[in-house]
Amino acid sequence: MSEIRKDPIVDRWVIVATERAAKPVELVQQARTQALLTCPFCEGHEDETTPEILAYRQTPSAIDGRGWRVRVIPNKYPAVTASGNPETAGGGFYHQVRGVGSHEVVIECPQHDTNLAELPTKHVCDVLTVYRDRLLGLASDERLAYALVFKNYGALAGASMEHCHSQILATPNVPLLVAEELAGSVQHHSRSGACPYCALLAEELEVGSRVVLETSRFVVICPFASRFPFEMWILPRRHASHFEEQDVTELTELAASLKSALRRLGAVLNDPAYNYYLHTAPLRTTAMPHFHWHLEVFPRLAQLAGFEHGSGMFINPIRPEHAAELLRAARD
Amino acid sequence: MSEIRKDPIVDRWVIVATERAAKPVELVQQARTQALLTCPFCEGHEDETTPEILAYRQTPSAIDGRGWRVRVIPNKYPAVTASGNPETAGGGFYHQVRGVGSHEVVIECPQHDTNLAELPTKHVCDVLTVYRDRLLGLASDERLAYALVFKNYGALAGASMEHCHSQILATPNVPLLVAEELAGSVQHHSRSGACPYCALLAEELEVGSRVVLETSRFVVICPFASRFPFEMWILPRRHASHFEEQDVTELTELAASLKSALRRLGAVLNDPAYNYYLHTAPLRTTAMPHFHWHLEVFPRLAQLAGFEHGSGMFINPIRPEHAAELLRAARD
Repeated sequence: MSEIRKDPIVDRWVIVATERAAKPVELVQQARTQALLTCPFCEGHEDETTPEILAYRQTPSAIDGRGWRVRVIPNKYPAVTASGNPETAGGGFYHQVRGVGSHEVVIECPQHDTNLAELPTKHVCDVLTVYRDRLLGLASDERLAYALVFKNYGALAGASMEHCHSQILATPNVPLLVAEELAGSVQHHSRSGACPYCALLAEELEVGSRVVLETSRFVVICPFASRFPFEMWILPRRHASHFEEQDVTELTELAASLKSALRRLGAVLNDPAYNYYLHTAPLRTTAMPHFHWHLEVFPRLAQLAGFEHGSGMFINPIRPEHAAELLRAARD
Repeated sequence: MSEIRKDPIVDRWVIVATERAAKPVELVQQARTQALLTCPFCEGHEDETTPEILAYRQTPSAIDGRGWRVRVIPNKYPAVTASGNPETAGGGFYHQVRGVGSHEVVIECPQHDTNLAELPTKHVCDVLTVYRDRLLGLASDERLAYALVFKNYGALAGASMEHCHSQILATPNVPLLVAEELAGSVQHHSRSGACPYCALLAEELEVGSRVVLETSRFVVICPFASRFPFEMWILPRRHASHFEEQDVTELTELAASLKSALRRLGAVLNDPAYNYYLHTAPLRTTAMPHFHWHLEVFPRLAQLAGFEHGSGMFINPIRPEHAAELLRAARD
């Protein structure tokens, strides 16, 4: 059983996930992407994975068989435990809850030798639509408060499988960084009467120097306080707190924007490792006037070092304005 | 001029340090430690570094000449700017201050082919005493609120130089993670009347399973909510908020504890990359009943991935109790 432990002094939670335990020496080797003779995520290897939760398929095609475009399976090495209730365990000096949740892998395409930025826009839209479907599906599990959609691309970004995939990790708590954004945006809204992300968009579109690209429904910027060189945020122009409420037109345009952002990143930095994650409102909440869903993307270049880990501050050697200029000029 | 920018929604500060700017393509290569034909940190190459701030030297020996044991120099690629005042720049939607501060390198020994864990205890004590001296020295600069002492060992831990060194980065603000520890410990103290770190030590010594080693004045534990496999905290038994007030007996025993902890880490994980940093009270503050200085050490094994960056939570695949057991059993 996975445990979610709280630091006794600060508001920091750690998932102690012994179900993915490895020998210490294996841990040292995790900085490499696993090289496999055959890839269980490839089409034709469906029987080597856990049974599928959802797939977009040709009709007719059998569950856990060939003929899919995007496929969702439980993570074979989950950070959280699927069964049980998240009640508090123990008492005494420390605080922990049982690490109940859902840890899913979204296999983004059947082919091994490609990546998200190279897939047709329509296919990227399928991947985004799967995110939406799973957020809607996970909302029915009352034990879960939040589902974080994220992607690790490349070994330096923490990917342990080469095959094009992303993940969804749903937990009984709202993760700290999301909770902080919610609290910060409530505060901003009560002070100004506006959604701070809407205000940020207006500011960025007026200033222009940090805008990477604009479509009729989406804007991609390098944020003012970018933690990482070439960090980008993708925001919808229309205020919406919940990603799940995007319709097919919006998801198609988001797919095109994401693809363009990733291709520009690849062009400027020669196919770097990267992460992205989706910040949307918690499960089973109603529309929020203060919060605005968005996708955060950043390449993994220099390693975080002792300063960042010890301070919670970041050092960014590239001005976001300069990064945006290079990304704007890049081919997509 | 370096800038310290604040995210408009959450309490997150980023140092935009254009003085260390590199071409984008160079950034991608920072995951490697720089291979140099000659090392400017080696004895005999003092004229290749910035002029020294402090050195423990044989007498007689000339400033910026041979004959030193530990030497402190300004970082050649500083994240912050030495001159100027940290006033707020701009106004409008975003908030930033000028990135004024001090960024120093502590060259821990004259020889290239060694590392801190292999130096004699007396020499490690010299390094710790230099930390103390610089904290006392930096306190006289009224522009600075905090000085973070940290070490990056190995390329995966963010080290760009091979030669045994640590760094001190002093900033006009108290870094977020330190501020959070101070706030959390004030809260705990006002509730219980005790320093939470003293309470934690009592709990750990009673439970025992997370203790790595004990000396008469120091305890090394794997913390209950370890973010990283084999994370260790070194705490003094005697309550003290300020590292600077440790005397030579205490620093000698701390040196032995740190050395033992690092040697055990090296033995269990085959000389991994690691970071450590010192959390002590801010500059020019008086003794605090609620805060307790400590050193946090952790190896850099798996990469942080999209989940950690997007959630602020950590996934630790090794129970701290298991890590402590392996570290206790290791040779030191």
